[in-house]
Amino acid sequence: MYKAPVEDISFTLKHVAGLKPALDSGAFGDLGEDLVDAILSEAGRFASEEVAPLYKIGDEHGAVLKDAAVTTPPGWKALYRSWIDGGWNALSGPEEFGGQGLPTMLGVAALEMWNSAAMAFGIGPTLTMGAVEALDKHASEALKAKYLAKLVSGEWMGTMNLTEPQAGSDLAALRTRAEPAGDGTYRIFGQKIFITYGEHDFTDNIVHLVLARLPDAPAGTRGISLFLVPKFLVNDDGSLGARNDVFCSGLEHKLGIHASPTCTMIYGDGFRGATPGAIGWLIGEENKGLACMFTMMNNARLCVGMQGVAVAEAATQKAIAYANERRQGKVSDYTGAGMAPIVHHPDVQRNLLTMKALTQIARAISYSCAHAIDLARVSSGDEATHWRDRANLLTPLAKAFSTDVGVDVASLGVQVHGGMGFIEETGAAALYRDARIAPIYEGTNGIQAIDLVARKLPLGGGEHVHGYIAELKAVADEVRTSNLQGFGRTAETLDRALDDLSEATRFLQKLLADGRLDEAQAGATPYLRLISLAAGGAYLARGGLAEQNRIALCRFFAENLLGEASALKERVIGGAESLSAAGKALISA
Amino acid sequence: MYKAPVEDISFTLKHVAGLKPALDSGAFGDLGEDLVDAILSEAGRFASEEVAPLYKIGDEHGAVLKDAAVTTPPGWKALYRSWIDGGWNALSGPEEFGGQGLPTMLGVAALEMWNSAAMAFGIGPTLTMGAVEALDKHASEALKAKYLAKLVSGEWMGTMNLTEPQAGSDLAALRTRAEPAGDGTYRIFGQKIFITYGEHDFTDNIVHLVLARLPDAPAGTRGISLFLVPKFLVNDDGSLGARNDVFCSGLEHKLGIHASPTCTMIYGDGFRGATPGAIGWLIGEENKGLACMFTMMNNARLCVGMQGVAVAEAATQKAIAYANERRQGKVSDYTGAGMAPIVHHPDVQRNLLTMKALTQIARAISYSCAHAIDLARVSSGDEATHWRDRANLLTPLAKAFSTDVGVDVASLGVQVHGGMGFIEETGAAALYRDARIAPIYEGTNGIQAIDLVARKLPLGGGEHVHGYIAELKAVADEVRTSNLQGFGRTAETLDRALDDLSEATRFLQKLLADGRLDEAQAGATPYLRLISLAAGGAYLARGGLAEQNRIALCRFFAENLLGEASALKERVIGGAESLSAAGKALISA
Repeated sequence: MYKAPVEDISFTLKHVAGLKPALDSGAFGDLGEDLVDAILSEAGRFASEEVAPLYKIGDEHGAVLKDAAVTTPPGWKALYRSWIDGGWNALSGPEEFGGQGLPTMLGVAALEMWNSAAMAFGIGPTLTMGAVEALDKHASEALKAKYLAKLVSGEWMGTMNLTEPQAGSDLAALRTRAEPAGDGTYRIFGQKIFITYGEHDFTDNIVHLVLARLPDAPAGTRGISLFLVPKFLVNDDGSLGARNDVFCSGLEHKLGIHASPTCTMIYGDGFRGATPGAIGWLIGEENKGLACMFTMMNNARLCVGMQGVAVAEAATQKAIAYANERRQGKVSDYTGAGMAPIVHHPDVQRNLLTMKALTQIARAISYSCAHAIDLARVSSGDEATHWRDRANLLTPLAKAFSTDVGVDVASLGVQVHGGMGFIEETGAAALYRDARIAPIYEGTNGIQAIDLVARKLPLGGGEHVHGYIAELKAVADEVRTSNLQGFGRTAETLDRALDDLSEATRFLQKLLADGRLDEAQAGATPYLRLISLAAGGAYLARGGLAEQNRIALCRFFAENLLGEASALKERVIGGAESLSAAGKALISA
Repeated sequence: MYKAPVEDISFTLKHVAGLKPALDSGAFGDLGEDLVDAILSEAGRFASEEVAPLYKIGDEHGAVLKDAAVTTPPGWKALYRSWIDGGWNALSGPEEFGGQGLPTMLGVAALEMWNSAAMAFGIGPTLTMGAVEALDKHASEALKAKYLAKLVSGEWMGTMNLTEPQAGSDLAALRTRAEPAGDGTYRIFGQKIFITYGEHDFTDNIVHLVLARLPDAPAGTRGISLFLVPKFLVNDDGSLGARNDVFCSGLEHKLGIHASPTCTMIYGDGFRGATPGAIGWLIGEENKGLACMFTMMNNARLCVGMQGVAVAEAATQKAIAYANERRQGKVSDYTGAGMAPIVHHPDVQRNLLTMKALTQIARAISYSCAHAIDLARVSSGDEATHWRDRANLLTPLAKAFSTDVGVDVASLGVQVHGGMGFIEETGAAALYRDARIAPIYEGTNGIQAIDLVARKLPLGGGEHVHGYIAELKAVADEVRTSNLQGFGRTAETLDRALDDLSEATRFLQKLLADGRLDEAQAGATPYLRLISLAAGGAYLARGGLAEQNRIALCRFFAENLLGEASALKERVIGGAESLSAAGKALISA
């Protein structure tokens, strides 16, 4: 059973991702280490003791649709209630609306724990948090007054309605219509698919944020507006009014996260005799919906990255525990009676250390991204720009690298369990199933890689990323000058990886400058992995410099896994031509 | 829907894995290319048209246990009947017992197709084939006469009973007992788990091969004997007699291959009032059971490797088809109306080409292994030794590399489908689930890697593997001297990978010579991948030399994926110390 790694999380926040210096400098007012640790510890307790025990029943029962109503698995509604009663939904929400206004870092660290305990549970509040942020930034005062406090507390949940059958990664193809009703409201018509927690029994109202087109809107993404469409209309006194014309018409039968209802939502179909048209309110300006949605999406991308970290952590814990229990064979370093616990076998250790190192790296990258978001919020001028750029640079890494790690680590977790891993009762297989969605939703990892190359490498006139690499280089220098034996060849391999990264970065920037976008895109996925591994190596080293007992894992990573960097660089620099040559044969006549 | 890649299979058999020169030299008598192609084509038709349509129903229904009887999914029994009526079970069986005695290569190629169409179907006959081989090599004439013809035709199916709860990878821990009854038969008592097709309704008898210990047997693996235990006793006239005391007490609830019943088998428990003790017959000599079982296991390992190839092929086909249908976004090389099919996006092409290249490599390695088995059978003296060594060397590659490829490619397949990939109806997720067992059963891939390093590198006094590397080197030379432009940097990267392989091989051989087995084991998994990638690169190049239109994929592999070789070499050579240092922290106090 999952046990929240509170100490590891706290250490990574403070000593790797930068929270301690920020706290010491007073960047977050009077927030101190004690409070941070108290919150993490309480969140860890809730995740381990309250959420995790409901994982299996959630996976087995799944969400069930009947008569347009969705029932969540036994115990899940009570769990959600107890979770919001604990104030967990409000952790990083705006104080003006009852939130605790704590740094994103803390929200994200807690989110990791909810997701490790049950990813199908953790994904719901992620959408509510995104809705809060979008409303807080873009909605009218009237809408904020009516909806925000209840979304912040979690009394109501929020959803994001982007995808339509023909419009997934490419929102330009969106067709859902919004017609002005003449009274300041709109009538929404259309079908949305893959809507997470689009319908459920956790809360008595659900606040849908919906992308749609106005009648006179320009084609493409510049003609998309964002609307708030509540399941139940809300009276001025805050009580619930009429049922709105938005209904769940189907649930997807998914590989994993079964307890999370993935809904097809029908807007404005006159369901059950309603006058056709779901009543909605515009958020922000007409035709600027995508910008509003991006507020949500950036946040959501980091949150999905946390799911990658979370499932990797859960899989790693489970595999280490099993490897210490299961006995097979003999091994020279085990002197006990009978067969050795398989954790003594070098090949099993290789799997477990790989899982552990990748999990820690993904966590460090994701927390660093959260930290940048926090510092951008509390700083101003050039410093704010710097941290905003940093957050933007790290978001695709946090999303894509972490979720790839989630899949790979969950797969290794099954492997370590041997035959038992393939049996559903063991639980390792469920993590392998759950993990698979995270590289897909909130922008596939391929889209993240393209975003990284095409939009993030140019930040700060192309210099921001080099500043980041220089910071990572400084860590390698520090390892070298530390003269700590246990680091082995860490400084050397890290230097080499960072040089490779630097070279690959300049190569891609040159392609972009020359307008050779296809070639740059061809190298995007290996580049994202390259920068993530190199950064991860530096983060592990920073951890090792701060705490002696973390050096061995850092060295394992540097001497066993970081070597991939040079192959990735070659792929970025020398791979596009052959890709293009071979790719043509894939296209049907 | 899966369409058997008959042309690709035929090409790989003939021009990459060595079938054509062998046919030309008359190694297989009057077997000619025409017959080979006719068989492949008919097998392909059966797999695509008869097996594949029953995949989904098999996955959804699964096998069901009631009153110790297992019912396979609707249509599956009839499918099996029609499959054996087509003579497919007898393809490579011994002619003396009604088999067609065709080369293993052909059996394996057909097996790939059954498994691509439905892995849960393909695994059943795999076990029967293993039983046939073990009986043919080790059983008494009386047992052969009674059982072999019906196993060869497929009228009865066979099983392998090795695993017990405490004895998985380590068979020394086996507890099942066999007591001599004094009449030449034995009574078997014990519990076996994870028994594939241990009970089912395909055939009216099932022939279990069971590992058990005689009362006076030495401890460990030198005290294990192999027994034949039929579900129904067989009268001398071949008719079925009494029900034997062996029953299925449970089915596993698995991640994938749901239609394949994975049984807990209880031997000798006096079930339903039977006199306790399952009646069995000794196969081969007392206490030599493991050697007999290894006959089966080597074969089964290659067959499981084919499952890796098979699922990768199915996933690749599905992903390419989807990428040609699904339209999202714009891309410069697509000039058609509306959004471009996603196959035009370079990042999608990278995924698809990676899938395609890895699948072809795994296929080439596996067929080369089958070819070596065939040539060992038809040759004698040094030549036979050479080919036996080759088969032994390639077996762990065929099993472990191919099944890792199966998982990785199925995962990429889900990714290419985007959100649809996570929906079970699409079918990509089912392949991802099915694929996951193959790296585990028939010896985990970690065990395969250790087998490769500890038992296969020493073959031929340590020289066999270097001879193999020299053959691969010759392919690189041929590419270079061919002066074919399309190969790009293939010769150069292949040479480099083979040099890395050579160095890593000598390093591990030195460790073995020095008795440093733990360190050698620490490098086993990266070594297995290194030799597989290097060999795979050479096989793709051989294909490209034989057929112009195969050059582009070879080059993509060489310039994009083969670069991993140098990192793998470093891991083999420089990774053990840090692994050992960090590994200790994994062990619970």
